[in-house]
Amino acid sequence: MKTDRHIAHEELTGAQVLLETAAGRGVSVCFANPGTTEMPLVTALDRTPGLRAVLGLHENVCTGAADGYARIARRAALTLLHLGPGLANGLANLHNARRAHSPVVNVVGDHASWHLAFDAPLTSDIAALAGTVGAHHEIDDRASVASVTRRAIDDAHERLGVSTLVVPADLQQLTAQEPPLEESPCAAPRPGVGGEDVEQAAHRLRAAGSRGVLLLGGAGLSRRGQSAAGRIAAATGARLYSETFPARAERGGGLPPIDRLPYFPERAVAALRDAAVVVLAGVSEPVAYFGYEGIPSRLAPQGTVHRLADVAQDVEQALVALAELVGAEDRPTAGAQQPVEPAPGAALTGQTVGAALANWLPENAIVSVEGGTCGYPFYSASAAAVPHTVLTNTGGAIGQGLPAALGAAIAAPERPVIALQSDGSGLYTAQALWTMARESADVVVLIAANHAYNVLRTELARHGSPEPGPQAARLTSLGEPAIDWVSLARGFGVPASDATTVGELCVAFTDALWARGPHLIQMTM
Amino acid sequence: MKTDRHIAHEELTGAQVLLETAAGRGVSVCFANPGTTEMPLVTALDRTPGLRAVLGLHENVCTGAADGYARIARRAALTLLHLGPGLANGLANLHNARRAHSPVVNVVGDHASWHLAFDAPLTSDIAALAGTVGAHHEIDDRASVASVTRRAIDDAHERLGVSTLVVPADLQQLTAQEPPLEESPCAAPRPGVGGEDVEQAAHRLRAAGSRGVLLLGGAGLSRRGQSAAGRIAAATGARLYSETFPARAERGGGLPPIDRLPYFPERAVAALRDAAVVVLAGVSEPVAYFGYEGIPSRLAPQGTVHRLADVAQDVEQALVALAELVGAEDRPTAGAQQPVEPAPGAALTGQTVGAALANWLPENAIVSVEGGTCGYPFYSASAAAVPHTVLTNTGGAIGQGLPAALGAAIAAPERPVIALQSDGSGLYTAQALWTMARESADVVVLIAANHAYNVLRTELARHGSPEPGPQAARLTSLGEPAIDWVSLARGFGVPASDATTVGELCVAFTDALWARGPHLIQMTM
Repeated sequence: MKTDRHIAHEELTGAQVLLETAAGRGVSVCFANPGTTEMPLVTALDRTPGLRAVLGLHENVCTGAADGYARIARRAALTLLHLGPGLANGLANLHNARRAHSPVVNVVGDHASWHLAFDAPLTSDIAALAGTVGAHHEIDDRASVASVTRRAIDDAHERLGVSTLVVPADLQQLTAQEPPLEESPCAAPRPGVGGEDVEQAAHRLRAAGSRGVLLLGGAGLSRRGQSAAGRIAAATGARLYSETFPARAERGGGLPPIDRLPYFPERAVAALRDAAVVVLAGVSEPVAYFGYEGIPSRLAPQGTVHRLADVAQDVEQALVALAELVGAEDRPTAGAQQPVEPAPGAALTGQTVGAALANWLPENAIVSVEGGTCGYPFYSASAAAVPHTVLTNTGGAIGQGLPAALGAAIAAPERPVIALQSDGSGLYTAQALWTMARESADVVVLIAANHAYNVLRTELARHGSPEPGPQAARLTSLGEPAIDWVSLARGFGVPASDATTVGELCVAFTDALWARGPHLIQMTM
Repeated sequence: MKTDRHIAHEELTGAQVLLETAAGRGVSVCFANPGTTEMPLVTALDRTPGLRAVLGLHENVCTGAADGYARIARRAALTLLHLGPGLANGLANLHNARRAHSPVVNVVGDHASWHLAFDAPLTSDIAALAGTVGAHHEIDDRASVASVTRRAIDDAHERLGVSTLVVPADLQQLTAQEPPLEESPCAAPRPGVGGEDVEQAAHRLRAAGSRGVLLLGGAGLSRRGQSAAGRIAAATGARLYSETFPARAERGGGLPPIDRLPYFPERAVAALRDAAVVVLAGVSEPVAYFGYEGIPSRLAPQGTVHRLADVAQDVEQALVALAELVGAEDRPTAGAQQPVEPAPGAALTGQTVGAALANWLPENAIVSVEGGTCGYPFYSASAAAVPHTVLTNTGGAIGQGLPAALGAAIAAPERPVIALQSDGSGLYTAQALWTMARESADVVVLIAANHAYNVLRTELARHGSPEPGPQAARLTSLGEPAIDWVSLARGFGVPASDATTVGELCVAFTDALWARGPHLIQMTM
């Protein structure tokens, strides 16, 4: 005798089984930019309760939003992408998601299985593309739609990485031969850290005293992780650093002030020069972002590295255990100083914007930071601000800040989201503004408009060209003509305004925070 | 005794040798979006006379422009892309370039060779990405910069495809151990077609009479190729078709009216149903764009296909030889009819825009067509227009039309360029507008603003959902909010206007053609 479930599933298409299995596993959002080979999935979205589709005008908006969503929600969203070129368009932000250890599940429609061999125009090597950012899962059978779907989702959560699930159009359309898997939201507990690793870390940190360093990343930058780290530092004398580009760092609200390991390798080497031990908690051994002649790739002195917990392990628990072991008391650590608020007439610079924002930040805000102009000064200034969460660009593929802010706003609609964004990187995925408008996402976008790829000016100087020739100057300038972000934002349906002083920024920022939906402020620098 | 050349080259960096070798081989434009690992190349651009750098705000603008450039100039431009993520961002238009058989040479900087093993944040599998669109060449030695560079360029020209040349940052910066190769612009003659293939084609076409079909692609769609095809048709009774999405088709000016093979496979099958022979000239066997249940993937009846010339062979010469063999006289073929110009008060539809544009086209214009709304009607209408060149989206990765128009304008600054662009696809690479403004490219951008992914509405209906549910409707709509292209264009520094009738379009189009630099017209439909 057949159960109700079996009777029902016999009428379900592969697309429906895929989406129902995902929804059953706790997936509730799909950032989508579909095409012809995903039409059965698009149709099935309307038959899958609890799965919300969010359209992006470009795939890199979808993948960056899925990354931002995962960082806040701590679970995977789906993306829905069209064939190889759709996946290719989203690869840059999947690269960032991989470096952020964000679970993301890309669903990619492929040609009907019987059509693939004919090398139609849109055919390309999807598996090769998927392999550059994570694992590739393929549904090649009507009987395995649900199981392969669940494997792709669980794999993303277990590895904390990117899964790409390829499903040919015919297998989406045909009736599936396997029911959706039972509902059981994915909640993979992180593997624990061995007691010996904790003991050894305690031993080495105690021995090192002020020459001990504890480097935090991943879940080590949670509120609980940083509190434990603060206690460890108080008990052992160790110095604390955060990885340079955290996927998600809790900040402010009395947390110990933890600097990021400096970006330029000579400064990072200097910061670690006298270390006797560098304990890694949720982070890999620190290496130079780029190789520069005469500067080592490895930033920690030889023989000093001790791995306490990898990013996919239970980093928080390892830190708590370590704090207990070193006999750290649960006492408040010395807080950082809130910077002085700049005068209303002050011009907008990285420093004034950083200090102002640290003072104005609403409680529980999420700040998606991309670009150096305001990013570094804000991070330094905000240690003593109200509690907030910072997301940074983890993989260096620029165009991540606006999509991540969008995804964060979808994950936490009750929290204010601020995108602190440089203009050069913002232009890669400015299309994210439109989805913010459509979804009425409460995002305040602050554009640091200096009309240059300033980081490249610095790099030209480091490479021996402090005064670039005309072509080099032009390749690092965003002037001629200057981008008008106010016009751009309005084109995408986002209200926008201009600010040139701290006072103007204050008015615009306050208005924007109170208004519903997104608002963009061009900070002319 | 050393020659001057040898003395000079001892002071040249790898970057200079690379660029000088490219310039010596006839490369004169580099569409660039560089980063830190390309700084020595950026510096070297100012020391390489005759190599012009053009900045794109997104890599897919650079690669699409290089494709458009190659289609018009018939030689490769360089792109300059930053590491794996930069290449990934440009892959979609490289996919189109691959399908267009356009020679394109991507120069990608990599981490310093001694830094690569440390898996720094921006490290990824560049070779795997490059392999999905063409050949991967790597400079791994100071002594082979020039020879590997030349090989990458020649390979792109010989295969008519995409080469990716990866050069680590240290090998760009260090003095090269090989001088730039001597100047000798690349002019690879296409391999000829064997006499037997031509004779057999002649035999089969003569035997087939009106059941003969000659399908043209690649260089077969040159003026000379189409003229020969017209004579062949006149002599044998064969029907002529163009491939559905030509990279470059000469049109108008008395050329025989040659329809494109229909896009939807059931119509293409019907068009070829009674064929006794389908002769392929510069094109592969025609296959369905997508697989639909019950419709064959192969469009030509079994056993009818005869390959006259592959796209990388001398297609023109094969057609001329075939025309001579079938005894075709050099007489004018019956021309097509120019469509009636719509009344000024007429609303803007695909049909009215197509007919109007066919009448208004300036002589020798290049029309970059992307999107179905106006693309198909214009192509059908323009057979009897003044001589012009049409570029279409060859690979189906959307976001190709605006970059291709930019590249065409750089390749042929003396020719008027028109981008006939649908709104959905235009939004993928709207950043191309800024480079048009910066380079003062004479491009008139016509946006068919219907605020929908209309092709997907059609596909939903074909997949059995003529009335999409709310999520499907939303995923195929570009409304809520409607994109304002006039604002977007102004944001990127491009003057813009609106048109809702044929009369308004006529005024705006005429003004735009006369003005210097780009102009965008939003055609509200």
